[in-house]
Amino acid sequence: MPGNSFGKLFRVTTFGESHGPAVGAVIDGVPAGLPLSKEDIEFELSFRRPGRFLVSGRREKDEPEIISGIFEGRTTGAPIAVIVRNTDVISSLYEEIRHKPRPGHADLPFIMRYGYENWDYRGGGRSSARETVGRVIASAIAKKLLMLTDTIIAGHLRSIGEVELNEEPTFEEILCSKYSPVRAAKKSLEEKFTELVMRAHQSGDSYGGVAEVVVKNPPAGLGEPVFDKIKADLAKAIMSIPAAVGFEYGLGFKLARMRGSEANDEIVVKEGKLGWKRNVAGGILGGITNGEPIVVRCAFKPTSSIRIPQKTVDLNTMEEAEISVKGRHDPVVAIRGVAVVEAMVSLVLVDHAIRSGVIPPVKLDKEQAKVIQERWERYKALCRPTEESQ
Amino acid sequence: MPGNSFGKLFRVTTFGESHGPAVGAVIDGVPAGLPLSKEDIEFELSFRRPGRFLVSGRREKDEPEIISGIFEGRTTGAPIAVIVRNTDVISSLYEEIRHKPRPGHADLPFIMRYGYENWDYRGGGRSSARETVGRVIASAIAKKLLMLTDTIIAGHLRSIGEVELNEEPTFEEILCSKYSPVRAAKKSLEEKFTELVMRAHQSGDSYGGVAEVVVKNPPAGLGEPVFDKIKADLAKAIMSIPAAVGFEYGLGFKLARMRGSEANDEIVVKEGKLGWKRNVAGGILGGITNGEPIVVRCAFKPTSSIRIPQKTVDLNTMEEAEISVKGRHDPVVAIRGVAVVEAMVSLVLVDHAIRSGVIPPVKLDKEQAKVIQERWERYKALCRPTEESQ
Amino acid sequence: MPGNSFGKLFRVTTFGESHGPAVGAVIDGVPAGLPLSKEDIEFELSFRRPGRFLVSGRREKDEPEIISGIFEGRTTGAPIAVIVRNTDVISSLYEEIRHKPRPGHADLPFIMRYGYENWDYRGGGRSSARETVGRVIASAIAKKLLMLTDTIIAGHLRSIGEVELNEEPTFEEILCSKYSPVRAAKKSLEEKFTELVMRAHQSGDSYGGVAEVVVKNPPAGLGEPVFDKIKADLAKAIMSIPAAVGFEYGLGFKLARMRGSEANDEIVVKEGKLGWKRNVAGGILGGITNGEPIVVRCAFKPTSSIRIPQKTVDLNTMEEAEISVKGRHDPVVAIRGVAVVEAMVSLVLVDHAIRSGVIPPVKLDKEQAKVIQERWERYKALCRPTEESQ
Amino acid sequence: MPGNSFGKLFRVTTFGESHGPAVGAVIDGVPAGLPLSKEDIEFELSFRRPGRFLVSGRREKDEPEIISGIFEGRTTGAPIAVIVRNTDVISSLYEEIRHKPRPGHADLPFIMRYGYENWDYRGGGRSSARETVGRVIASAIAKKLLMLTDTIIAGHLRSIGEVELNEEPTFEEILCSKYSPVRAAKKSLEEKFTELVMRAHQSGDSYGGVAEVVVKNPPAGLGEPVFDKIKADLAKAIMSIPAAVGFEYGLGFKLARMRGSEANDEIVVKEGKLGWKRNVAGGILGGITNGEPIVVRCAFKPTSSIRIPQKTVDLNTMEEAEISVKGRHDPVVAIRGVAVVEAMVSLVLVDHAIRSGVIPPVKLDKEQAKVIQERWERYKALCRPTEESQ
Repeated sequence: MPGNSFGKLFRVTTFGESHGPAVGAVIDGVPAGLPLSKEDIEFELSFRRPGRFLVSGRREKDEPEIISGIFEGRTTGAPIAVIVRNTDVISSLYEEIRHKPRPGHADLPFIMRYGYENWDYRGGGRSSARETVGRVIASAIAKKLLMLTDTIIAGHLRSIGEVELNEEPTFEEILCSKYSPVRAAKKSLEEKFTELVMRAHQSGDSYGGVAEVVVKNPPAGLGEPVFDKIKADLAKAIMSIPAAVGFEYGLGFKLARMRGSEANDEIVVKEGKLGWKRNVAGGILGGITNGEPIVVRCAFKPTSSIRIPQKTVDLNTMEEAEISVKGRHDPVVAIRGVAVVEAMVSLVLVDHAIRSGVIPPVKLDKEQAKVIQERWERYKALCRPTEESQ
Repeated sequence: MPGNSFGKLFRVTTFGESHGPAVGAVIDGVPAGLPLSKEDIEFELSFRRPGRFLVSGRREKDEPEIISGIFEGRTTGAPIAVIVRNTDVISSLYEEIRHKPRPGHADLPFIMRYGYENWDYRGGGRSSARETVGRVIASAIAKKLLMLTDTIIAGHLRSIGEVELNEEPTFEEILCSKYSPVRAAKKSLEEKFTELVMRAHQSGDSYGGVAEVVVKNPPAGLGEPVFDKIKADLAKAIMSIPAAVGFEYGLGFKLARMRGSEANDEIVVKEGKLGWKRNVAGGILGGITNGEPIVVRCAFKPTSSIRIPQKTVDLNTMEEAEISVKGRHDPVVAIRGVAVVEAMVSLVLVDHAIRSGVIPPVKLDKEQAKVIQERWERYKALCRPTEESQ
Repeated sequence: MPGNSFGKLFRVTTFGESHGPAVGAVIDGVPAGLPLSKEDIEFELSFRRPGRFLVSGRREKDEPEIISGIFEGRTTGAPIAVIVRNTDVISSLYEEIRHKPRPGHADLPFIMRYGYENWDYRGGGRSSARETVGRVIASAIAKKLLMLTDTIIAGHLRSIGEVELNEEPTFEEILCSKYSPVRAAKKSLEEKFTELVMRAHQSGDSYGGVAEVVVKNPPAGLGEPVFDKIKADLAKAIMSIPAAVGFEYGLGFKLARMRGSEANDEIVVKEGKLGWKRNVAGGILGGITNGEPIVVRCAFKPTSSIRIPQKTVDLNTMEEAEISVKGRHDPVVAIRGVAVVEAMVSLVLVDHAIRSGVIPPVKLDKEQAKVIQERWERYKALCRPTEESQ
Repeated sequence: MPGNSFGKLFRVTTFGESHGPAVGAVIDGVPAGLPLSKEDIEFELSFRRPGRFLVSGRREKDEPEIISGIFEGRTTGAPIAVIVRNTDVISSLYEEIRHKPRPGHADLPFIMRYGYENWDYRGGGRSSARETVGRVIASAIAKKLLMLTDTIIAGHLRSIGEVELNEEPTFEEILCSKYSPVRAAKKSLEEKFTELVMRAHQSGDSYGGVAEVVVKNPPAGLGEPVFDKIKADLAKAIMSIPAAVGFEYGLGFKLARMRGSEANDEIVVKEGKLGWKRNVAGGILGGITNGEPIVVRCAFKPTSSIRIPQKTVDLNTMEEAEISVKGRHDPVVAIRGVAVVEAMVSLVLVDHAIRSGVIPPVKLDKEQAKVIQERWERYKALCRPTEESQ
């Protein structure tokens, strides 16, 4: 099956290239009766928006147009198509790469797969991170639907390069990092991250980083053994993001170094309910959510586009060549990546919530719609900077 | 869609519980004309077999019965159903866990999802690693089909607990590790691993480990942007394995700490063909195979079943209780896990090879069948210990 | 995606050839907590059983073995694998057709698709109607689950050759036709059908027929616009049956000859609920069930296997040849076809009922299980002939 | 899985409502290298265009905008999104139906499924035949790809009401019917059809009809046993069309009245190749294409929207009410239905051609692209009326 769709019952199909007329998504499987506005989508899009502090110079407004599926402010059960026009595009910058594939980029693999003459080289074409606009559009709907179970998704950056978080943040701090220009959950870290990003920007280099997403109040019992375990679907979702190179949940790779007697997490009774003592497993056991907060991490490689000259091969001559990537690029893709990891986590959870009958597949009743809208308003207000502080 | 199937065009459905009549798989989408015998399946099954040195006491022969899809020694294009009877089963050992869910296990999440009274507690039921027999059965067919492109998959253990590989093995050493009882690619490592496993066995504890799988001669150009990237499908495949807690490819998490100028891999001409200098990306760029060897790693947590007593909750009384897990268990699941990671990698590659038209979807011609069979015989002979050496 | 699976959330995969070791099915997506026994499956299988009056001489017991998914008499949520061994097989009868493809059969198309040397010619191999055993196994589970909404599916034959029903039967008469050896809903029709079948049997010829299935108490609101309309999924389900050559619902082809003012069905209030006056639409409007009884029909072609000699081509010589099909064959496949149409209707309805949240996707509670079991017992008792009458 | 997508490897997702901003489609799985222009799409759209003689008064230009997937006039392998703005919309005509569901329409079933308050009643919303614009857009790509195997799809109307074709047309006559305002393949029939349509228009009534589609040069060997038989997928495709109420292929329902000795079609050698004498089976045997022309028929019910007053229920009062459907409607939907049946047949064939490896899944080479473009130009020129004749 073609690769541009994600999800089984909440199904997202994205389309569009970096320098084509528009990017967008069709979201199928949204139950009827969900209040939904253009502003809801703009809200989520604002956190992956280029043009923020040092983060990619592209200055598009990313204004979504809802093409279908909404009637009188509510979803109808029909597929929701949304497009965002590409406006701030300078394709001429990309003429050079047409015959000099960029190291670290998808250029040469796309040529290997689809043929040189069919390759849309402008701005990376379909392999551009701009594709993720469609994912974030869909996530606005997913996150809103998840308000039904009071589930909230929040992400931040644990590290950029060698600079790491050294004190665990609270869930609220993680959530509020979306207003930090470097997705830092702690003020002290924000400074260190900023300095590093500045340095990378000046030297024409880039850094990798590790994003973490935490889910508060996930429904217990989600995940379909054996192949559609929630950990497997989260891994696929997150590893489908451009520049993602590693995935783990709970203690992750650290567990490989431990003994069972350390790693096993005690089952306890908390406030009258069964739970786990330390959440070693990051909310997932046997591939099924256990009701504890879900914790996943994604390693991002450094932005492949750097100004520093690199060696490649000139496809016309098959001889060694040098390329210095022009254009406007984030020195740390992981920063904007956080919003995309959040988006992918929301798509997995809403899909499994519908598959498990936790969110109704066909329609919400008025009471459910009301609860969702109230929680959504509260969610949007969280951490919102006052006007002076901006 | 229900969770017990994997793959789009080469589609595997597994079934069966640890203590039910049998486990097995249906493999749909196998082209006609592939020579296939019971022995081919037994060969691959032998490398996940319990009963080897210290590795799980269960002593089943794992004898596959082919139910359908083969005629006169060749596949017909019809689905291939294979079952393996469960013979060496002692369910009585599991009576205790019926009301004392084991820490680190899927017991309680299964109860949360399916209901206490519907939970097959015997030997973990469906969540048992015994389910992976079906995956390995399917992988025998997948690996054999991949002989068409001369693609070979080999895995080993990079670490158990804190003991790590300190010298990179050759591909042949990795391949030959399947005859090592601890899946070590180096003799010196085998000794250290063995000692650690012994110690764990004696103390009733367990260890985690990191498995690595390398693919030689993968076809270039596999992977469907954007959601079905090869890295995404590998991540899902591998994270669907019981006890898998982390996934990375290429340099993986290390890349998050690096600069772009270090991490980007130079494009070069090698033997007249375009390639990459250091294979930093582990054979995958932009989610598409680039022709370099594929390198993936999977972190396994320590075996959850340990004899050392642990705290849990008695579901009858909802009070604190203690459990010491009896039965026969591997002190290091990662050891047998290597065969399963290999299996999952083979399922992803064969599926994408068919999706990309590299392996024909409907039938092989006689010449193709012949080439496959010859390579398969060679593959089976590789590293095979002589009789004395066993 | 390979073609041996059906359904999205209630997913059936069949396997097995006519003369292989066994036929069977894996049913994935069955909620936990459904009481299920081997006898439940045998009950439904008995109505497609060969060996009944004049209907195919094959005399197998069709004894199902449940391989997985059941624990203490209830489903666990794991996939249910069931096999039926092939016992009464005489492959030697088929040697002739190996090089003389039978007119009306799948022989030559299978050869065209899969290659001559990969074709399992014995008894039609995978294209044999024996494959439908797997469908009927699955339908036992589907029909039982549909008891939750008190939905009952019943089929009969409207015509064999030119002999047609001339008086509309009641739903009960249709249901009781399963004990009629020619699936006639009326005694007078049974006689005429029997006579015709006898004549065909004697002359070595065969007849076509039209099966009709009626669904009582279908849930309203099932069907997903636009491609997964309930009418579309029913059409696919029914047209996937061997020998099915036409599909219609409601007035079907008759509607093409009518005016809108005749064809439109008046909306009325019946017992306080909205409904339709004449059920012209056979329970489906806009591709969605409207709560009225569903009525579908399937045209079956005459059995392709006839003793009367027919012309074909000898594949060895590429010259004209004659073939007279030996072996034991139903003179009217439509008779056994009724059970298979019923089965396919049940698979579509249960799938859509789960997709629409009418049947819970993960587990039934005890009360639901109890209601289902009670209704199932009543259903099994309906029309059951007393011992003398048999 | 949500219902707005069709196809496995050539996957079409449609979106949009009758009176929303636009309708459209995303087509995923198109191989790279296919020459494709806006004009190609407009060409196919012109044959379902409203505003032709007596056929629905809606006068939109149906101007497609290609949003993605094309670069320098060729497909890139990325998903192709196309939208058509809705321009000529008068929603006020529909206020009445908001509380008076129209007989024969999807109004009440949509309300039953999605809830009254979430129902987009304007022009039928998502259930409007306007949705089929997306299907015809996709079919332009499908039909063009099928030029690779020289496969041509042509449809016509066999009957409107009681007026029937009484002489079999040639394939060319069928193809040229697309320039007939009533899709008649014979001049004499065109007159009779026209008269009937006029009469229906004047009396405010409507008629049903039977569409037939014939495929010349279909690849042999398409269709995946057992559930994805080509006949099953065609049935689903065609029965998913609004107003479709019956499906058959080959002799269809007539076969149910025949004897096997009449119905079986002799296998013969034609021009050195194996074939069938009479094509009784309409190109499909055992669910697999056999190389003979494919012949399918679809029964359309009469247009549900008629001016003649009909009885319904007022949802506000739950009392009997009368409705006369205003707005601009085709008296015979079957006329425009022909283009949609053609479209659906093309989607099934191209999907199966890719699944069977007959059309390459990833990219076309230049030679293939050239052959396709040449045949496409010839195809577009066929039957084209000269300027005077229009």
